[in-house]
Amino acid sequence: MAAAGDALALPDLAAIRAAQRRIAGFVHRTPVLSSASIDGEAGALLHFKAEHLQKTGAFKARGACNAVLSLDAGEAVRGVVTHSSGNHGAALAYAAAKRGIPAWVVMPENAPAVKQANVRRFGATVRLCAATVAARESACAEVARECGATLIHPFDDPRVIAGQGTAALELVEDVPELDAVIAPCGGGGLLSGTAIATRALAPRVRVFGAEPARADDAARSFASGRVEALAPTVTIADGLRTTLSPRTLAAIRAHVEAVVTCSEEAIVAAMRMLFERAKQVVEPSGAVPLACLLEHRSRFAGLRVGVIVSGGNVGLDSLPWRVA
Amino acid sequence: MAAAGDALALPDLAAIRAAQRRIAGFVHRTPVLSSASIDGEAGALLHFKAEHLQKTGAFKARGACNAVLSLDAGEAVRGVVTHSSGNHGAALAYAAAKRGIPAWVVMPENAPAVKQANVRRFGATVRLCAATVAARESACAEVARECGATLIHPFDDPRVIAGQGTAALELVEDVPELDAVIAPCGGGGLLSGTAIATRALAPRVRVFGAEPARADDAARSFASGRVEALAPTVTIADGLRTTLSPRTLAAIRAHVEAVVTCSEEAIVAAMRMLFERAKQVVEPSGAVPLACLLEHRSRFAGLRVGVIVSGGNVGLDSLPWRVA
Repeated sequence: MAAAGDALALPDLAAIRAAQRRIAGFVHRTPVLSSASIDGEAGALLHFKAEHLQKTGAFKARGACNAVLSLDAGEAVRGVVTHSSGNHGAALAYAAAKRGIPAWVVMPENAPAVKQANVRRFGATVRLCAATVAARESACAEVARECGATLIHPFDDPRVIAGQGTAALELVEDVPELDAVIAPCGGGGLLSGTAIATRALAPRVRVFGAEPARADDAARSFASGRVEALAPTVTIADGLRTTLSPRTLAAIRAHVEAVVTCSEEAIVAAMRMLFERAKQVVEPSGAVPLACLLEHRSRFAGLRVGVIVSGGNVGLDSLPWRVA
Repeated sequence: MAAAGDALALPDLAAIRAAQRRIAGFVHRTPVLSSASIDGEAGALLHFKAEHLQKTGAFKARGACNAVLSLDAGEAVRGVVTHSSGNHGAALAYAAAKRGIPAWVVMPENAPAVKQANVRRFGATVRLCAATVAARESACAEVARECGATLIHPFDDPRVIAGQGTAALELVEDVPELDAVIAPCGGGGLLSGTAIATRALAPRVRVFGAEPARADDAARSFASGRVEALAPTVTIADGLRTTLSPRTLAAIRAHVEAVVTCSEEAIVAAMRMLFERAKQVVEPSGAVPLACLLEHRSRFAGLRVGVIVSGGNVGLDSLPWRVA
């Protein structure tokens, strides 16, 4: 594994295995679920890695725990900081609580109360700022400067990527005969870790990224070889409205077969299918891989596919099929 | 085991074990789930037997499969009939399809299209009748007479009770240190089977029934020793608006410690808790045991409790917390 300071450093299989040992007491080894009924709809044999059942309700607990537990004692005591108002913020708060160190989570002042509460319940401090990228970054830098806290980036960090890769490690261990693995792609931390782990353990298995057509920056970046920007966009899978970093793009270009996209309607249909058939509460981003499988049936017909269901944190008062 | 024709005949542990072997290829051995967060709310250690993940979305597949697979060849070929428009109807349709025999399900003509479709997708024939008990029973008798189909009652049948008891059998095998088991109670088939299996396998474990306060006929019957009637009532747990039979009352009086009740508000809160914290889609009846545990915290404080989550078939367009 290259030095963490290197902007292109990526974890290898050994680093992902080390992460697995490091976080073992702090995260669940989540089950792999299947549904004959959904298999019938997809025309494939799907093995859902249930990260919505992970601590904090998302795979993010893996990367956050690995990063926090990797800090040396001197760093750790000064705490950690991040600027994600979503699942990474809660995961970092959880990881810091488990290590008994302080955590700060910078959030835009318009962040929903439920998201703030979700971070505070693990004892982290919420620092509100204006709802701009610049304000967010400067608030983060301020906490780092004032408190000496270490910034834990949501995805552009080899320790985080190694942690996220442990989900695929378990999946490939638990379902040895897979033909393909598909994971959602926002900033690319999960997809990078998934691809590195899967290809190292089972080179025969093809890895796919999944994203909303409305936020197809990863598919475009994959094609062009550059980190492509994303125009302001609205997708129900709001967790995936993030562009790659050069680091995650490098991992994805090296190990991923294709990034496939899906419509908003397919995301809602897949999410509802997971609720109705599998009885699982999955957030829109977590349903994106299934949505892609349903929209690209012929490509995956008859295959055994591992599907990373990334999270289950969804507002139950505003489910997307709710009749007005 | 007494003759099935005996109105008070009940299965014993041997019959439940035989049911388990008989249905093994046709139903899931469902997982046992837990949630540290829900344990914190309940002040107890809860082990959820996940029958919402069962084939057809409810424990009913167990009893229906056991009854259908218990028929001799001559009976089987003429098919089966029942008059449940809910989970038992779909379960019987499923069981009949698995054995390759015809099934008729009598439903009131006002039964929702989704319930009719749920039965038809397993290949059963829906026979509509007027929405009265008399019409339902005479339609059933007519099918039995015309086709020679065997009536499979939703709960007042030792073969059905034996099948339902296999859920508790698995639960007690999988979680050996339980203090108590709690199951919802409608007609009492699940609770009877649960109580017989649990007490025979683990006499130290106390068994509780759970029902809505608005449909507390089982609690009253348990107290009086007679099958008490239920006035027309509205409860969100519509699957539990059924009175006991002398058979199920006898089993419950012999083996159950108490039947506890809960408010409608507690049912909605428990259901939402299962969605939000455990990420599990559970129908109101399936949330009633947790609702009872939450309303009777002191009674169960610190105990290890097995909780039978009976089903997950809930209309996603009309979730009870949906804001108007």
